[in-house]
Amino acid sequence: MTTNLLRVPPPQELLQPLAVPERLLLGPGPSNVPPRILAAGGRQLLGHMHPEVLQVMDEIKVGIQYAFQTQNRLTLAISGTGHCAMEAALLNLLEHSDTVLVAVNGIWGQRAVDIARRLGADVHELLKPPGEYFTPRDIEEGLAQHKPSVLFITHGESSTGVLQPLEGLGKLCHRHGCLLLVDAVASLGGAPIFMDHQEIDVLYSGSQKVLNAPPGSAPISFSERAREKMLRRKTKPLSFYLDVAWLANYWGCDGEPRRYHHTAPINTFFSLREGLAMLSEMVSGTRQAAGHRHQELLPTITTVRVPEGYNWKEITAFLMDNHAIEIAGGLGPSAGKVLRIGLMGCNSTSSNVDRVLRALRDALSRCHRSRL
Amino acid sequence: MTTNLLRVPPPQELLQPLAVPERLLLGPGPSNVPPRILAAGGRQLLGHMHPEVLQVMDEIKVGIQYAFQTQNRLTLAISGTGHCAMEAALLNLLEHSDTVLVAVNGIWGQRAVDIARRLGADVHELLKPPGEYFTPRDIEEGLAQHKPSVLFITHGESSTGVLQPLEGLGKLCHRHGCLLLVDAVASLGGAPIFMDHQEIDVLYSGSQKVLNAPPGSAPISFSERAREKMLRRKTKPLSFYLDVAWLANYWGCDGEPRRYHHTAPINTFFSLREGLAMLSEMVSGTRQAAGHRHQELLPTITTVRVPEGYNWKEITAFLMDNHAIEIAGGLGPSAGKVLRIGLMGCNSTSSNVDRVLRALRDALSRCHRSRL
Repeated sequence: MTTNLLRVPPPQELLQPLAVPERLLLGPGPSNVPPRILAAGGRQLLGHMHPEVLQVMDEIKVGIQYAFQTQNRLTLAISGTGHCAMEAALLNLLEHSDTVLVAVNGIWGQRAVDIARRLGADVHELLKPPGEYFTPRDIEEGLAQHKPSVLFITHGESSTGVLQPLEGLGKLCHRHGCLLLVDAVASLGGAPIFMDHQEIDVLYSGSQKVLNAPPGSAPISFSERAREKMLRRKTKPLSFYLDVAWLANYWGCDGEPRRYHHTAPINTFFSLREGLAMLSEMVSGTRQAAGHRHQELLPTITTVRVPEGYNWKEITAFLMDNHAIEIAGGLGPSAGKVLRIGLMGCNSTSSNVDRVLRALRDALSRCHRSRL
Repeated sequence: MTTNLLRVPPPQELLQPLAVPERLLLGPGPSNVPPRILAAGGRQLLGHMHPEVLQVMDEIKVGIQYAFQTQNRLTLAISGTGHCAMEAALLNLLEHSDTVLVAVNGIWGQRAVDIARRLGADVHELLKPPGEYFTPRDIEEGLAQHKPSVLFITHGESSTGVLQPLEGLGKLCHRHGCLLLVDAVASLGGAPIFMDHQEIDVLYSGSQKVLNAPPGSAPISFSERAREKMLRRKTKPLSFYLDVAWLANYWGCDGEPRRYHHTAPINTFFSLREGLAMLSEMVSGTRQAAGHRHQELLPTITTVRVPEGYNWKEITAFLMDNHAIEIAGGLGPSAGKVLRIGLMGCNSTSSNVDRVLRALRDALSRCHRSRL
């Protein structure tokens, strides 16, 4: 055996150069990445236990604490995308047979149900039609009926464009002996969130939306109440990679000397650090966004009904082919019914609004009607 | 509530520029990333369902097939680091109460035992002292005694520097109705591996070693036998993020139209694509490496005993502080006993060998002896 075992030849496809065209990304995420953040991700590597990397991780931690408005010491970034953080939240909080109530008004609730069932939890769904949000009364009835130990709810339901009001939900959950777990992947930085004040127990987001960093890391934070439930576990979490006890140590959250757990996506962390730094430099951003509260519309993603007689696919393809702009169709329950236009971070400018409106007018005048 | 709820102020740490010093990374990984791969990772983002990204994923797939020397259609990259691929392999292969035999001669076997136990598998350990490898006879005795459905073994045991000979193990496993799962995180590209010829059923690696890409994605491939076992599952895998049925669809391995599963770490994939492209361009690399077979020493990581009377920590700190070179101490069972020097991908040059040897001579003449 030596060269005669090389039966799979070098692939021709890889002898071509990498092709990455320029696009304006106005879909529900990822959004375009500003040059400063791209440059951070393109810096030379360091080792995953080097003091400079541990320092970057410490900076990410305080950046997340700021973005989430929390003082939780158990605050870190997951080495995976937003969906990985959803899984990390559920699998650390839930043990086999734990009761969990999932508020489902779009795809993210559906996904949380799928994950929690895989974990062997006793899963109950609180259902609302897509496009609607949950009132405190809806939640209270669900808590009283099912007596869950965890309530999952989505802050920004990016499949339908609904912003879920969070005021009072934390207190409500705590009165019923339940933890509040909030998905803020699509809303963080666009709609105000105050983790400590709103008594949210577990909050997570993604890096590729308003934070304008590439996908591949996901901020997450756990309250003292959540930490106590996890400390009381009788069984280990079903994942080693996402076991928060190990992650807490690697992120310096437990006061112990840091041990190797896994090789972190180091330059993805460099990018996330810069995304959080840019957020910290824009103090006014969060204040302005606070004005949107209680409008129940997700400010990061504008969802509009597909104009009657038009085919959504033809419109999105037209914008991509003729204007190099990405917007998206629906997802899950909204599939086929809506167009979703994202304006996040550095893409959220009035000139981009003009550009996408011009492109849409062009599409409506040139795409065929009634070809559904 | 609005600005008065901003109780956590913008962190001062994030108002400083990101600090990333230049280092020569000659530890067991990550290794330095060549400019071409860094540049690929710094390209502007595209959407995770854009045809250009799906094209890059197709190119990664054929690149992995080449690197692994396999024609398996179920070949893809996990959206996480090497440890995440270990978890993906075990959780897709194993169901609750499945019997698995884990060959343990260092930290990676120990970790596989931990993960498999969390999954509720019936785990048996085949033990060897750190620094030794397993003979076909060791394996055969284990298979006959425990009748496992999966055998886990580490090709490059980076904690001790041992290269596990793989010849014949696939056939042996198949004679005993068992699947062969191989960890090649530290060995791929440095020591020859021929997945199809060696009848390996599941093989995975990392991006940050010989492939010279940043950490954050992990190549994995499943044989037809492995695929059949997964199709026969009675229960869903315990993770949605790592469920290979979903991943197979997203990666275009199942012939069905591709659906959204999760937002992939897109520019990490750009980097991995370039790492695999560089491997494809160096056909001769694998041929040369083939000469190392049966030496039972991992060619990517040279492990040497700490010279008597010296403290390993003082030596590694001296190299970092005075020569900006990273080398590592032991890990797990080899902790405190060895120094580990990695020469991978673009770092594997004779001038780097000279540089690290000069630095080590300097350390031995200037570090204190007998201060253990």
